[in-house]
Amino acid sequence: MIQKLISKIQQTKAPIVVGLDPMLKYIPEHIQKKAFDEYGETLEGAAEAVWQFNKAIVDATCDLIPAVKPQIAMYEQFGIEGMKAYERTVSYCQEKGLVVIGDIKRGDIGSTSEAYAIGHLGKVQVGSKTYSGFHEDFATINPYMGSDSVLPFVKVCKEEKKGLFILVKTSNPSSGELQDKLVDGRPVYELMGEYVAKWGEEHMGDQYSYIGAVVGATYPEMGKVLRKVMPKSYILVPGYGAQGGKGKDLVHFFNEDGLGAIVNSSRGIIAAYQQEAYAKFGAENFAEASRQAVLDMVADINGALEAAK
Amino acid sequence: MIQKLISKIQQTKAPIVVGLDPMLKYIPEHIQKKAFDEYGETLEGAAEAVWQFNKAIVDATCDLIPAVKPQIAMYEQFGIEGMKAYERTVSYCQEKGLVVIGDIKRGDIGSTSEAYAIGHLGKVQVGSKTYSGFHEDFATINPYMGSDSVLPFVKVCKEEKKGLFILVKTSNPSSGELQDKLVDGRPVYELMGEYVAKWGEEHMGDQYSYIGAVVGATYPEMGKVLRKVMPKSYILVPGYGAQGGKGKDLVHFFNEDGLGAIVNSSRGIIAAYQQEAYAKFGAENFAEASRQAVLDMVADINGALEAAK
Repeated sequence: MIQKLISKIQQTKAPIVVGLDPMLKYIPEHIQKKAFDEYGETLEGAAEAVWQFNKAIVDATCDLIPAVKPQIAMYEQFGIEGMKAYERTVSYCQEKGLVVIGDIKRGDIGSTSEAYAIGHLGKVQVGSKTYSGFHEDFATINPYMGSDSVLPFVKVCKEEKKGLFILVKTSNPSSGELQDKLVDGRPVYELMGEYVAKWGEEHMGDQYSYIGAVVGATYPEMGKVLRKVMPKSYILVPGYGAQGGKGKDLVHFFNEDGLGAIVNSSRGIIAAYQQEAYAKFGAENFAEASRQAVLDMVADINGALEAAK
Repeated sequence: MIQKLISKIQQTKAPIVVGLDPMLKYIPEHIQKKAFDEYGETLEGAAEAVWQFNKAIVDATCDLIPAVKPQIAMYEQFGIEGMKAYERTVSYCQEKGLVVIGDIKRGDIGSTSEAYAIGHLGKVQVGSKTYSGFHEDFATINPYMGSDSVLPFVKVCKEEKKGLFILVKTSNPSSGELQDKLVDGRPVYELMGEYVAKWGEEHMGDQYSYIGAVVGATYPEMGKVLRKVMPKSYILVPGYGAQGGKGKDLVHFFNEDGLGAIVNSSRGIIAAYQQEAYAKFGAENFAEASRQAVLDMVADINGALEAAK
């Protein structure tokens, strides 16, 4: 799957991922109204609005992008109906040829981590049959509990040729409360980067490992260090756009081969129509606004990469 | 809800929680067969087996215990149908008067953490209506991302009078890869314990905070230190029984008032019938074996607490 991700990035010339994090406040009134008219102001209605919103954005952008990253929390908040919309979104994006990174940030120990891995990336055995619950292609995971937590995911990824992005340095302001603390003279994020590099050796693709890392665009200097600590790990970079990261901040997340990083934008793309720059599209044409925002983001990043050559 | 938890512990004289982590291999053949006969070897069939297994154990133990802790990974592995069984288990346990600790180990940043908090502990707004997706009473969360990640949960907990158990020192062998590293001369788990104490001040009950911590029974010396670092935080203690923790290891997790800790056992209780000590019950009477295992666990812990007086 890492090979598929890389070849899709090369084919689209777009090292980006669209974050499908559909809060209701991002969803245009007319989509919400139609869903509520059909299903009432219910969890089912909310899930229908989420699904119709996602579908329109995926349809409008899927030829331009290699991957999407649905944030499961935004679905989970609507309970079972939300989880159905999540699974439906994963399936639809895969039908459209997109790589799906489930932003699930799970992590537990031993057989419990294995259960998460099976549910999201693998197959669960039921009697003589097997089933794939949520069947994403990659998942984000949280490494606080150590190898016992991560290796069951790696095991399932090896069986399924799927991959991970492990939280290393997250994009939020308070990430430093733990991640920047010095341990044996280097920050926790570097220690975790070293672990990611080591775990990554367990499951290599041709050039890059199936085991990548999450490093926020809001910390470009740390990205520069981590790029060297984990040379064969793909870096998933959140924090572009709405959180403040810009194209020029991203240059050092990439390797000299022009690969090695994939930059996420969520509300910057899916709620583009609510921003001044794209207001001219109007709420009716929200999906076209998203398409334009994708084109602009790709130009920003590729421009910065060109300028840095 | 922390008051309810404390008063239920005092009433049952049982500072324990039963971990409802129903792997199929723990579920007796006759329960699985009945479910598969009805629904086939499908995710629905697996979810039915899980539900019938849980219900029998809850019915057999609910008068003896204050709380249950369903581990959501064990449900999530069965996809949507598994999530339905999770929600059904939460509802049933609450009907039986039990406090439900959702072992979800979620964590993300800002509005994303808030979405998890809303989905599990709060209410989501849909038009003019509100709904509670999974409606647990407490949830476990992962603090790797810092305050941005934790405080949205605390906010929802304050609105709903619900609580958290934040991962501090987990019970697994490799927890030390990060959690034991020294930061400014003290280990990461102590740093996190200090954060928990600080976050806990934001949401106090009468004696104890609504914001507790997870500290593994397998690390009693660290439990002793953390008890002092977070005097007003309840400690959820996993790792008793199957993972190796014993009653005498647990004494220092409690405060002098005899409160302050609640000890979890999962497979030690729910799969008791598979252990030599309870084999006499047989698979048919698995729920009675679980009841006996609860009685034995309570006697072990209370005996150790008495002996330490």
